[in-house]
Amino acid sequence: MSVDAFLDRCRAIVGAGFVLDTPGDMAPFLRDWRGRFTGAARAVLRPGSVDEVAQLVRACADARVPIVPQGGNTGLVLGSVPDAGGTAVVLSLTRLNRIRAIDAVNRTITVDAGAVLQHVQQAALDAGCLFPLSLAAEGSCTIGGNLSTNAGGTAVLRYGNTRELCLGLEVVTAQGELWSGLRGLRKDNTGYDLRDLYIGAEGTLGIITGAVMKLYPLPKASITALAALPSPAHALQLLSLAQDRAGASLTGFELISEYCLELVATHFPQLPRPFATTHPQYALLEISSNESEAHGVALLEGTIAAAIDAGIVVDAVVATSVAQSRGLWALREHIPLAQAADGKNIKHDISLPVSTIASFIAHTEPLLQQAFPGCRLVCFGHLGDGNLHFNVAPPHGIGHEAFLANQANVNRLVHDTVVAYGGSISAEHGIGALKRDELARYKSPVELNLMRAVKAALDPHNIMNPGKIL
Amino acid sequence: MSVDAFLDRCRAIVGAGFVLDTPGDMAPFLRDWRGRFTGAARAVLRPGSVDEVAQLVRACADARVPIVPQGGNTGLVLGSVPDAGGTAVVLSLTRLNRIRAIDAVNRTITVDAGAVLQHVQQAALDAGCLFPLSLAAEGSCTIGGNLSTNAGGTAVLRYGNTRELCLGLEVVTAQGELWSGLRGLRKDNTGYDLRDLYIGAEGTLGIITGAVMKLYPLPKASITALAALPSPAHALQLLSLAQDRAGASLTGFELISEYCLELVATHFPQLPRPFATTHPQYALLEISSNESEAHGVALLEGTIAAAIDAGIVVDAVVATSVAQSRGLWALREHIPLAQAADGKNIKHDISLPVSTIASFIAHTEPLLQQAFPGCRLVCFGHLGDGNLHFNVAPPHGIGHEAFLANQANVNRLVHDTVVAYGGSISAEHGIGALKRDELARYKSPVELNLMRAVKAALDPHNIMNPGKIL
Repeated sequence: MSVDAFLDRCRAIVGAGFVLDTPGDMAPFLRDWRGRFTGAARAVLRPGSVDEVAQLVRACADARVPIVPQGGNTGLVLGSVPDAGGTAVVLSLTRLNRIRAIDAVNRTITVDAGAVLQHVQQAALDAGCLFPLSLAAEGSCTIGGNLSTNAGGTAVLRYGNTRELCLGLEVVTAQGELWSGLRGLRKDNTGYDLRDLYIGAEGTLGIITGAVMKLYPLPKASITALAALPSPAHALQLLSLAQDRAGASLTGFELISEYCLELVATHFPQLPRPFATTHPQYALLEISSNESEAHGVALLEGTIAAAIDAGIVVDAVVATSVAQSRGLWALREHIPLAQAADGKNIKHDISLPVSTIASFIAHTEPLLQQAFPGCRLVCFGHLGDGNLHFNVAPPHGIGHEAFLANQANVNRLVHDTVVAYGGSISAEHGIGALKRDELARYKSPVELNLMRAVKAALDPHNIMNPGKIL
Repeated sequence: MSVDAFLDRCRAIVGAGFVLDTPGDMAPFLRDWRGRFTGAARAVLRPGSVDEVAQLVRACADARVPIVPQGGNTGLVLGSVPDAGGTAVVLSLTRLNRIRAIDAVNRTITVDAGAVLQHVQQAALDAGCLFPLSLAAEGSCTIGGNLSTNAGGTAVLRYGNTRELCLGLEVVTAQGELWSGLRGLRKDNTGYDLRDLYIGAEGTLGIITGAVMKLYPLPKASITALAALPSPAHALQLLSLAQDRAGASLTGFELISEYCLELVATHFPQLPRPFATTHPQYALLEISSNESEAHGVALLEGTIAAAIDAGIVVDAVVATSVAQSRGLWALREHIPLAQAADGKNIKHDISLPVSTIASFIAHTEPLLQQAFPGCRLVCFGHLGDGNLHFNVAPPHGIGHEAFLANQANVNRLVHDTVVAYGGSISAEHGIGALKRDELARYKSPVELNLMRAVKAALDPHNIMNPGKIL
C-alpha cells in the first residue's frame, strides 16, 4: 500500500482534520518534553473514539506502519516520540479525555486514556474522594501515559505506583482488536494478569484506551515536618521509627541533602530557610490523618519528639498551618527548578533496597569524586520508596555543557554501582529509547529472552512503538 | 526416551529417595485438598534446591513430560493435582522451605517457594514485623502456592492480595532456565512485568522457586466489633463510613447473614451469641492501630457511634479484650465449619464491584428461590473486597448429596448473574481444572487469545501444568 493510500484510509477513519501531516502541525508531537530530541513521522493521527483507535491500528497493521502511542508527551526517556526514520505514525490519545464514570462506594473512577491526570484528580475530589497519583507533569500528562510508564510520584510510599492504583484496563491490541478488561474488582483470579503486562510496557504491546482506577477516602488533614539529620543513615532510622509509629498514616518521606537546599537558596532566595544553621541532611515527613488535623499534628509531633530523644533528629520544624506546610514542600519541589537554573547536569533515576541507601551514598560519592574531582552531587528523592534522584553537576569553574561530555562515564559508574547494590537503573521513568542500551547491558539474557518472547507473542509484526524498551 | 530412562535421569538429579513412584508414596500428592478427586502420575519429584528444580524441568522438557508444580496442595480448584491420565509428574516444592533472608529496614523477607505460610508469618514476627497474608490453610499452604494462585484471605482490604505483597520472584522457566528476579525494590520500571505474569498463573508458565515479599510495621493493637444491620445495603453504608473515618486503619470488614450465625449456633452451641435478638445482617469490623490500643478502641467506638446516630447500625458489640475479639472472629471462622457439619453445599467464590453487592444479593436470592424453591443461601465474606462466599444449601428435607445434582444449574444461575453485574467467577481461588470450562464460557475470545499467546510464548511445548486455566 502506498503512503498516500494508507493516509487516505486513516482520513476515512478519523476525518481529514485529525490526520496531521504538515511539519508545523506535527512539531509538538515529535519533540521530546526536555527538548533534547525531535523525531520524524508520516503523520500524527488523532482518533476521537476507542473504535477509531482500533480501526487505525488495523490500518497500520495491514500496511506494517509502526505506531508510536502518545499521551501528554511528558515522558523523560524518549518513549513517546518517534525515531528520526520518519516511517512511523504518532497515535495521539488526547482526544479521548472523558471521565467515563465515578463510583464513590466502589471507590473507582473509569477514565479514557487521554484524560489529563489533574482532571482525574479533580473529578475524584468533586466526588469527595482522593485519587492519589501526583507528579510534576500532572497538568499535562495523561492517565494512559501514567499507566504505560507505571509512573511514580510523591505518594508512592502510601498508595503505590500507578500499577497499584489500577484495577482494570481497556486495550487495543497490536492486531487492532479490543480487549475490554475494565473491571472494578479488588479480587479477580481468572487467568493471566494481562493488565499488569500492558502497564509499564510503554506502548510496545498494545494501546491502553481506558482504565478503572482506585480512589481513596480523602484525608481530613496532611501535616508536614522538616527534620535536620546528621547523615543518610539517620534518615533511615527516622523512616523506620516513623513507619512503626504512624503505619499507613506516613504518606511522604523525602530525603534532601544540604547541597540541595543551598542550590534552592541560591536560585530562589525568596523562599525561607527553615533552620538558622546548616545540617548535612534533611527529611521531609508528611503524615495524613483520616480522623482530624489534631490527630495528625499529635502523631507527627510525637514521632519527631521520639526521634529527637533517640538522638536521630537534631532539629525540626513542624508546619502548623497549610501555608507553612506548602512552604516546606516548596523547598523540595524547587530542587529540580534550582538545578535547571544552575545548568544542565547528569541525571539518574535510581532505586535501591531502602536499607542500603546510606551505604550506597557513602560508597558512590567518593567513587565519583575520584573519577570526576570536584563534581557536585545533587542527591534527593523519595527515600521511603528507595528512589533517589542522584544527579551529578560539574565542579565549580567547569561549564555545564562541557561536563556533559562525561555523561556516559558518569552513568556507567553510577549504574554499575546501583546494580551491584541490587538496585534499578530506572525507578519511575521507564526505559523508552534513552535507556534501551542500558537495559540490554544490565538485564540477564534469560530475562531479555522472556521479554522478547512476550513482545513477539503480542506484537508479532513489531509495529507497536518499535525501538523502545527492547 | 523410555519412562524408565526418564525416571533414572530424575533419580540422578535428586537422588533415588526423592523420586516417589509407588502408589502409597504418591497418594498424598495426588489427592485434592477437599478429597473430591485423585489424579495419577508417573512419579512425584522432590527437588532439594533451585538448581535441582531447573535440572528436573530440563529433563521433563527433553522427554516432553508434563509437570504439575505443587506446594502445600491446599488449593480448592484442582490446580495442584495431576489429571487421571498418569503421564505427568508432580514436582513438589516442599523441600525448598528456607527463610533465605529478612531485612527489617527494607521491610522485606526473601523465602523459598516451599516455605509454609505460617513459618513466614512467624519469621516476620520474630523480626518485629508483620507479614499480613493470612488464610485458613496457613498451617499447610506454601508461599509458592499463594503466589501461583494470588491468594486472598482476611487482610486484603488493607494489604492487598498476594500479588500486592510480592516485590520480586525467582522462577524456573518452562525451558529449565533460571530467571533471578529477586528484587527488593518498591520502584523498578525496567521492562515488562514478568513478576505479575507468573503470579496467579497457577504453575502453567513456569515454576516459582523463591520470592521477596513485603513486610509491614506490626500494629500495636487490633480491635474488633460486630455490628447488627437491617440489610446488606446498610452494610455498604457502614463500610463507606468506616473507611472515611479510619482510612487504612480499617483492616477487616466481613459481612455475615443471620442464617450464617444460625448455622454456627446449631453446630457450635458452645460459642456465645453476641446479641439477645436476631438481626438480618451483621458486619465484623477490625481496626488496627500503629499508635496504641486506646487509639484503636476510640476510633472503632467513634465509628460505631456515628453509624448508630446515622441509623445505619441497630446494635453493636465492641470487643474490649483480646479474648472477646477472638470470640467475635471465631463466629466468622466457624461459618465454613458449620456448613461442613451441616452437609455439602454448592459453593461460589465470587467478587463484585463493592457498590453492587446489595443489589446483587437482592436480585439473585429470589432467582435462586424461583429455580430451587426452599434452597438456603449461606452468604458471607470479605465485603470490603467485594468478595462473597455465596453458597447454596438444599431446602430442609432434601438431602445434601441429592441437591448436589443441581450443581451445574446453580453455578450457571449464579455465575451468569455475577458476570452481568461486572463481577468475577473466581475471586481468590483461581481456575485450576475445576473452573476451566467456566473461564472459557465467560472470557471474551480476545482475552482468551491473548492468554493463549502468552502461554505459547512462555511454554511452547505445553508441559507446564497442562489442562489448568486454559
